[in-house]
Amino acid sequence: MAKGLDTKTTILEIALEQVRKFGFESLSIGELAKLVGMSKSGLFSHFKSKELLQVTILDYAAENFILKVIKPGLKLERGLPRLEGIVQNWLKWSSSHKHGGCPMTAASVEFDDRPGIVRDATKKHLTALVNSITRSITLAVEEGHFKADTDCNKVAFELYSNILGLHLYQRLLSIDDSKKMFEQSVAELFNRQKA
Amino acid sequence: MAKGLDTKTTILEIALEQVRKFGFESLSIGELAKLVGMSKSGLFSHFKSKELLQVTILDYAAENFILKVIKPGLKLERGLPRLEGIVQNWLKWSSSHKHGGCPMTAASVEFDDRPGIVRDATKKHLTALVNSITRSITLAVEEGHFKADTDCNKVAFELYSNILGLHLYQRLLSIDDSKKMFEQSVAELFNRQKA
Repeated sequence: MAKGLDTKTTILEIALEQVRKFGFESLSIGELAKLVGMSKSGLFSHFKSKELLQVTILDYAAENFILKVIKPGLKLERGLPRLEGIVQNWLKWSSSHKHGGCPMTAASVEFDDRPGIVRDATKKHLTALVNSITRSITLAVEEGHFKADTDCNKVAFELYSNILGLHLYQRLLSIDDSKKMFEQSVAELFNRQKA
Repeated sequence: MAKGLDTKTTILEIALEQVRKFGFESLSIGELAKLVGMSKSGLFSHFKSKELLQVTILDYAAENFILKVIKPGLKLERGLPRLEGIVQNWLKWSSSHKHGGCPMTAASVEFDDRPGIVRDATKKHLTALVNSITRSITLAVEEGHFKADTDCNKVAFELYSNILGLHLYQRLLSIDDSKKMFEQSVAELFNRQKA
């Protein structure tokens, strides 16, 4: 059982690396089998189908994100300090993967028009993420850091939008000062809500 | 010659539709040949390789975008009216494709880690787009609609980020009021720059 779990984690790490670089569509069970040095049927016994493999990769990526970005934030003071901490963890997390983009963003673009379990899993994880950001913003209102009439959903939308913008500006466009523009925009966004 | 051009446009329309739904990676010349009712070798004579087909689709999408979003904006008064017009055209353009997302956003996520002519073409078109938005913002400063110290690059970053956010919120997450949040965020962004 323990061995089975370790093997699965190893496979998922390699699969995630591939997905970061090449997206979900181009990852076949056959190609992954070659990369991990297993037989195609051995890999099938772990994941049953390409779609289940894709969902398992998404679940694994979400679990990692929560562990590295959200959970350490929960140790910080509720409200603005926690919100700022999560943004900083998020920045660190994105720049720790030099050779590949965000798997969840890749899935959101690849599957937004393809109904099925992969789209459902992507939607579930990203909805949870939006809810988690919105909750942190709501706490900043409750703690008196942000104004009582703050539109928490809109602040979450703007924050998430800036993260998507940073991803594009840094990874594809290599625009100077992307990170500086992002940090300034987010600092101003938070300043505008301050009580 | 005219016939050749028409055939190419027909193929590109069908290819673009596929790319909007399923992304670039899953579009093979063989599959496209079936969809347009041509032989694989006939299709190869038009595009030479999968990469050249992908680049031609991107060029075609960019041409359409300029025709529908940027050019009509140029007829409006320089400065803020033109900038607001372009944002409105952009919104209309995105919602006119009900069954598929933005091909340029798909390419930006699929190819950001894959050096080659497709990544180069995506980067070229999106850099031109960022430059075009930034130019419209600069004109709003020159016309005295926006403050002289407006950080035009940062305003372009925030505007583009909100467009990416809207794409995710509407197409995948189906979050209520996505369009309303987007329009309010952009109106506030422009208001903050007003002279």
